[in-house]
Amino acid sequence: MGEKYVELWKSLGLDLKKHGQLMEALPKFVVDLVFSQKNRPKKMDYFDFVLSEIHGLRVEELAKLRAAGNKVVGAFCLYAPEELAYAANATMVGLCGGADFSVPDAEKVLPQNLCPLIKSFYGFKVGLTCPYFQSCDMVVGETTCDGKKKVYELLNEEIPTYIMEIPHKPDSAQGRKLWLKELEMFKAELERVTGNNITAEKLKASIDLINNKRKALKRLSDLRKNSPTPISGLDALIVMQISFYDDVKRLTAKVNELCDELEERVRKGEGVAEKNAPRLMVSGCPMAIPNWKLHSIVETSGASIVAEESCTGTRYFSDLVETKGETVDDLLLALVEKYAKIPCACFTPNDARIKSVEKLAKEFNVNGVIYYTLQYCHSYNVESVKVGRALKSADLPMLKIETDYGSGDSGQIKTRVEAFLEIIKGKQ
Amino acid sequence: MGEKYVELWKSLGLDLKKHGQLMEALPKFVVDLVFSQKNRPKKMDYFDFVLSEIHGLRVEELAKLRAAGNKVVGAFCLYAPEELAYAANATMVGLCGGADFSVPDAEKVLPQNLCPLIKSFYGFKVGLTCPYFQSCDMVVGETTCDGKKKVYELLNEEIPTYIMEIPHKPDSAQGRKLWLKELEMFKAELERVTGNNITAEKLKASIDLINNKRKALKRLSDLRKNSPTPISGLDALIVMQISFYDDVKRLTAKVNELCDELEERVRKGEGVAEKNAPRLMVSGCPMAIPNWKLHSIVETSGASIVAEESCTGTRYFSDLVETKGETVDDLLLALVEKYAKIPCACFTPNDARIKSVEKLAKEFNVNGVIYYTLQYCHSYNVESVKVGRALKSADLPMLKIETDYGSGDSGQIKTRVEAFLEIIKGKQ
Repeated sequence: MGEKYVELWKSLGLDLKKHGQLMEALPKFVVDLVFSQKNRPKKMDYFDFVLSEIHGLRVEELAKLRAAGNKVVGAFCLYAPEELAYAANATMVGLCGGADFSVPDAEKVLPQNLCPLIKSFYGFKVGLTCPYFQSCDMVVGETTCDGKKKVYELLNEEIPTYIMEIPHKPDSAQGRKLWLKELEMFKAELERVTGNNITAEKLKASIDLINNKRKALKRLSDLRKNSPTPISGLDALIVMQISFYDDVKRLTAKVNELCDELEERVRKGEGVAEKNAPRLMVSGCPMAIPNWKLHSIVETSGASIVAEESCTGTRYFSDLVETKGETVDDLLLALVEKYAKIPCACFTPNDARIKSVEKLAKEFNVNGVIYYTLQYCHSYNVESVKVGRALKSADLPMLKIETDYGSGDSGQIKTRVEAFLEIIKGKQ
Repeated sequence: MGEKYVELWKSLGLDLKKHGQLMEALPKFVVDLVFSQKNRPKKMDYFDFVLSEIHGLRVEELAKLRAAGNKVVGAFCLYAPEELAYAANATMVGLCGGADFSVPDAEKVLPQNLCPLIKSFYGFKVGLTCPYFQSCDMVVGETTCDGKKKVYELLNEEIPTYIMEIPHKPDSAQGRKLWLKELEMFKAELERVTGNNITAEKLKASIDLINNKRKALKRLSDLRKNSPTPISGLDALIVMQISFYDDVKRLTAKVNELCDELEERVRKGEGVAEKNAPRLMVSGCPMAIPNWKLHSIVETSGASIVAEESCTGTRYFSDLVETKGETVDDLLLALVEKYAKIPCACFTPNDARIKSVEKLAKEFNVNGVIYYTLQYCHSYNVESVKVGRALKSADLPMLKIETDYGSGDSGQIKTRVEAFLEIIKGKQ
């Protein structure tokens, strides 16, 4: 990929030498973890291609969009209202934040004992190794956690970073009012940056666009309820991860094509795992690309991951935005309602998440849950207490894994996962 | 103290055996760190007495207040609006959260890698070793940080814990509106719990009460601008810590008496340190009683701490509440304005704090700053980057200390402090 895009990368101001090291390491990583899986759906070809072009083709597309006068907005959170961005003819992309590679660059400034996702994204920006960051006209941040909130202040020194305040009491009327105002202000900021007015018609169209993407991802997720599951957890996670930065219409079509194939598999009773393979749900922190560590360990240990209760999972596609309204104000209120339903651990209390975990565990007929928390993520870490209790009441075993992006603890995690699977098999 | 209060402690449901261990350890700790200081003001006698009665006399007073039908509200944060509590005839007390003693009880439930203050307070409650917790009718919590926010949910299972949402964008109009609504709702909750109406007259009186306390503490703080400083940093910190749970009127009078003595010292040119002792400011996280580790290490190494830019310092008393208003609504708006001025690291961006650090460093004529962060406190930890830059511009050396409540790192901290003082002396 290197030769072809070097001029593009240069034009974006990447540190070519450092970025080259990253590009060298990635293909082997993909082959070892992703391509080595057995019995993969054919329609994963497209997503494999996207992975192989991870810093290439899509970055080139963004460059073309920008050359045509469109803007690119980077984001890290489901609360970043992509519907508004697309209504202003902007494109929203999830930014790099899933690799250990950039952490040393971050730790020149940030404390070591901070969430790996935060260190990773800050390191990608200051180390000039993420072409998506370099393609952005602005970043939209939020106040979902202390770490991101404070690091966005430093990120703002590198790239304009607009902050939206997220209310933390989920059912408060004053919180809804604040969030509506935040949406109105972000709308105005997008109109300023893009020079385009956000009309009711355009907003409705972009809500439809994103709803269709959410529907396709939900369709994929629902197919994993079958036993055997027709797709590995790792492949489903990759599709989800790619959905945050790929072209929305193409991605939606490709996910639906994949689902067509998976439906056929289901009809034939075919799947990716042994018939009695334990079915697990992962619940907790998001997994940014290429954070495949846990999925890879679990699925090479004989279990299937059939659901991710996370921001790179069910939280993204469980709810759609209502499109009944006729005015921008109506549609903004619909956005308020939709976003308030995302059960982020930034909420207090976050009863909706506890209920969601219980419900998903039943719907996906799982034998156990792996509670996944990134190191130093207090919100998800502490919330494991309540989730653990709920699962205990439902007689479902839970294994809590707290980890970073390094491979140093992979052996230890594998040992713990294997022991957990023994417990589950004992109960089956 | 044990014999005298054992019946009281029993009636409060304390774990007498475990609490006895705490009470045994404390006197030696006080003698070693506090009483060993040289040239202490005579009027510290009162505060020494309060320390010696830490779980006794004041707890007895609270029991008497409750027997007379008054309510006690526990709190952990400057954002807990004590003016409203007193206007409802309730008493507000800062709760236990400064000792390593209770951390093992917390870690039975909470993750290890969480802020020591949070683990300490939760451990004091679940371990039944804090008589103040046991004297509370309710706790008022807030959304200032992820750790507290999520642990309050668990605390609520032990004692009714009311949560106030703190807006995180300091200058936003929608944030002010949200905070006003939160104050109105907390007022209603206090009225419900106490059965007392909060009238404009009562609210005005309680604003005056607390303003007078803030004024006395500010007067004490201002006296430390003198060289030599007339009081050790440790003693000033102890006064501050006691101010969070002592009777407000008595405390105010005693602080003013202490200030009278210190003014006399200043007139005579007397102080507690050598004439050329480096003057340091501590900036960062609060220090709950009996967290005296850093002050003790610094001041036994030949320097004076002359200011604490923290919630157990300048942030508490720098601003007063305006009492111009005539209605409850007017006064609530005055509270909104006052509280919005507390430069907590939960704010983004928190420019007011950076400016405050610069201003205080000048006013107190310090030779350097110790940036103090509790372990795993992302907000203060990351904000050290901006504070550090500002101090560098002002040519002031800064030493960052990140620590917990254990004594394991005391030797290492002492070595680092001594090296820091060498640098400062080299510049003097």
